[in-house]
Amino acid sequence: MRNVSILGSTGSIGRNTLEIISYFKDQFKIVGLSAGKNKKLLYQQIKKFKPEIVSLRDKKDADELKEQRLNLPVKIKYGQEGAEHVAGYKKNDIIISAITGINGLKPTMAAVKSGKRVGLANKESMVAAGALINREASKSGAEIIPVDSEHSGVFQCLNKENIQEVKKVILTASGGPFFRLDEKDIKNQPVEKALNHPRWQMGKKISIDSATMMNKGLELIEAKWLFNLPPEKLSVLIHPQSIVHSLVEMRDGSILAQLSPTDMKIPIQFALTYPHREESVLSSLDLSQVSSLDFYEVDLEKFPLIKLAYKALGEEQYFSVALNASNEAAVHAFLEKEINFSDIWEFVIEVTEETKRIEIKTIDDILKIDQEARERTWSKIRQR
Amino acid sequence: MRNVSILGSTGSIGRNTLEIISYFKDQFKIVGLSAGKNKKLLYQQIKKFKPEIVSLRDKKDADELKEQRLNLPVKIKYGQEGAEHVAGYKKNDIIISAITGINGLKPTMAAVKSGKRVGLANKESMVAAGALINREASKSGAEIIPVDSEHSGVFQCLNKENIQEVKKVILTASGGPFFRLDEKDIKNQPVEKALNHPRWQMGKKISIDSATMMNKGLELIEAKWLFNLPPEKLSVLIHPQSIVHSLVEMRDGSILAQLSPTDMKIPIQFALTYPHREESVLSSLDLSQVSSLDFYEVDLEKFPLIKLAYKALGEEQYFSVALNASNEAAVHAFLEKEINFSDIWEFVIEVTEETKRIEIKTIDDILKIDQEARERTWSKIRQR
Repeated sequence: MRNVSILGSTGSIGRNTLEIISYFKDQFKIVGLSAGKNKKLLYQQIKKFKPEIVSLRDKKDADELKEQRLNLPVKIKYGQEGAEHVAGYKKNDIIISAITGINGLKPTMAAVKSGKRVGLANKESMVAAGALINREASKSGAEIIPVDSEHSGVFQCLNKENIQEVKKVILTASGGPFFRLDEKDIKNQPVEKALNHPRWQMGKKISIDSATMMNKGLELIEAKWLFNLPPEKLSVLIHPQSIVHSLVEMRDGSILAQLSPTDMKIPIQFALTYPHREESVLSSLDLSQVSSLDFYEVDLEKFPLIKLAYKALGEEQYFSVALNASNEAAVHAFLEKEINFSDIWEFVIEVTEETKRIEIKTIDDILKIDQEARERTWSKIRQR
Repeated sequence: MRNVSILGSTGSIGRNTLEIISYFKDQFKIVGLSAGKNKKLLYQQIKKFKPEIVSLRDKKDADELKEQRLNLPVKIKYGQEGAEHVAGYKKNDIIISAITGINGLKPTMAAVKSGKRVGLANKESMVAAGALINREASKSGAEIIPVDSEHSGVFQCLNKENIQEVKKVILTASGGPFFRLDEKDIKNQPVEKALNHPRWQMGKKISIDSATMMNKGLELIEAKWLFNLPPEKLSVLIHPQSIVHSLVEMRDGSILAQLSPTDMKIPIQFALTYPHREESVLSSLDLSQVSSLDFYEVDLEKFPLIKLAYKALGEEQYFSVALNASNEAAVHAFLEKEINFSDIWEFVIEVTEETKRIEIKTIDDILKIDQEARERTWSKIRQR
C-alpha cells in the first residue's frame, strides 16, 4: 500500500487522480489533499477518501471546514504553508503536484525536498525553477515522474535508452482551436472560442495557453529540465488528433513514440504505478477507427509564443520565469476581457524581452522576478 | 572490435549488412560469408572484406572460386554444411542469418548453438522451429535480435517492459501492391504486378509474400516465438506508408510504437550495435513531410493467408511448417507462371489443412514435414 497526497485535489488532474485511486484501493491510500477555493468539493473528497491532512488556500475556508465537524481525525491547514505541509507530510510515498501556475512552485519544492516520488503536473515549477528542482531532487533522492501526457510519453520512450543517443525529442501539439485559421483571423478571437479546445477538457488557464500555443512552449522548457536536453534536441510538431503524444528520435534513425487515448488518467496512472503498469479502465485505442494521424510544422509567425519559448531554451532561467509570469497575468486579463487575444503575446513578448538578466540562487529570487514581471504586465495593460 | 559472419551475404539483407559494416570499420570485422549461387558477387565481397571463411551452395562454384587464386588466406566451403561451418565459426561474435526460406534453418540453428548473438532475418527458422530454437538459445545463451523491421520495432518498444503487462503486439503491413483492389480483381494478377511492391525493394519470394500478405502471416508466427506471446496478443494492421513498423499496446492503455524510414539498414544496424545505437547514415524521417499515417483493418477474405496464419498461431508447430513449405512451393510455381496468383492460397490452404499432426522433436522432424508438404503441393500443382 502506498500513501498518496495530492496538491490541487479539486482541479482536473486532482479529480482524475482520485478517480484512479478509487479503482486501486488495495494499492494506494490518500493521506493528504490540498485545494484552492473549492471547499465544497474538498469536503466531499475528505468524506470519501479520509485523508489525514488537508489544506485550503484561505484561512476563512479552513476555519469553516473545521466548524463542519467532519467527525474525522483530519488536520486542517491553510495557505501556501498549508500546501507545503501536505507536500512534506511524513507519511507520503507519492505526491501528485497539480496546482496550476507559479503557486505550485513552493509546494512542489517541498515535495521534492522530502525525497519521495513526485508526479509532476505543475509545469510552471520546472519552467521557473528547473535547475533548483533538479539540484534538490538529486540531493533528496526524489523521483520526478512527469504527469503531462507529452512528457509522460517521452519518459516512456526514453525508458532505459541512453540520453546521449537521443537525436531529438518531439512534443506534439493539437494546435488548439485556431491552428487552421489565418494569422489575421486569430488576433481577435473571443474568450469563448479560445476556451473551446478541440481535444482536451481542461482548466481555463491551460485552455487559453493551448489556443496561443504557449502551453507547448512551457512544455518545451519543462522538457529541457526534465530530460536534461540541449535546445537543439527539442521541437514541436502539430498533430491535430492528439493520439501520438511525443516522439523520441534516436541517432540511429529509429523514432520511438507513445500513443494513447486523450485522457489524463493514463499519464496519472503511469506516474502512480511506475515501473509497473496496471490494467486501464479506459477502452483500448483502435487505430483503424482513428484512421489517420497527421503531422504539420508549427507556423511560428502565427504562434509567436512558441518562438519565444524556443528562444527561452537557450536563455538563462530568469527569462523563462518572466515569460511564465507575464503570460499568467496576460491570460488572466484576457479571461477578464480586459485585452484582446493577440494582446496576450504582445504583452508577454514585450515584458519578457525587457526583463534584466538575474542569476537565480533561491526560490525567492524566482518569486521576485515573477512578481516584478507580473506587475510590469499589469501596469502595461492598465496604461493602455 | 566484433567479428561478424553473414549467412546469405549476396542477398538484399546481406548486401545491406556489408554496407553498414563498411561505415563502422572500427567496430566490426567480417570473418565469414555464406552465399548461394552468386559467386561473382561473393568474389567481390571476399576481395573487399577479407573474410577467413566463405561458403557457396554448390561444390562446383566453390571449386571454381578456389581456382581463382584469391591470394587471400580464406577457407572455402560449400553446401548446407558449408553454411553451417560459417554459422558456427569459432571467431564469430555476431551472425546475421539472412538466407531466404527453409534453407536457412540448419545454418541458423548452428549459429544459435554457438551461443553468440544472432541477428535473425530468416523468419522461416522461427516459423518452422521456434520452440526448438528458443530451447537451444536458452541452453547456449545465444542472444536473438530480430532483423525484420517489424520485429526490430517490437523489440525496441518492449525494451525493459514487462511482457506480462503487454496487451497486444500489432505488426503493421503495407498491404502490398493489391490492398486497394477488390477481392475479385486480385485473383488473376500477373507476376510482374505482384513483384512491384509499393514501399520496399526486396527479393522475389518476399515480394510475392507481401502481395498475398503471407509475409505478414509468417511474421505473426515469428513474433509468437520471438516474444513468447499467446495468439490473442498478436495482430496486424494495414499501414500503407510503412513508417510505423509495429505498435505495442500495454495494459495501461499506452501504445509504444517504432517508426523509421523504410530502409532495412536501420534494423540491421540496430541488431549489430544493440544495446547501443550509432549515428545513422540515412537522413532523418521528417513527419511533417510524410504528413499522414493511415491505419486499416486487414480484410481476411481478401487475404486468406493471413487468416490461415492467425489459425497457425493456435496450432502446434507442424502446422506452421507445412504452411511455410507449401507456400514456398506455390510461390515458386507462381513465379514460374505455372499457376495463377489466387492459386497460391488455394494450394497452401489445402495442403496445410490436410497435414497430419506430428510432434516435433528434432530439426529432421521439421525437414520431413517440410519436404512432404512441399512435394504434396507440387503434386497438386502438376495434377491440375
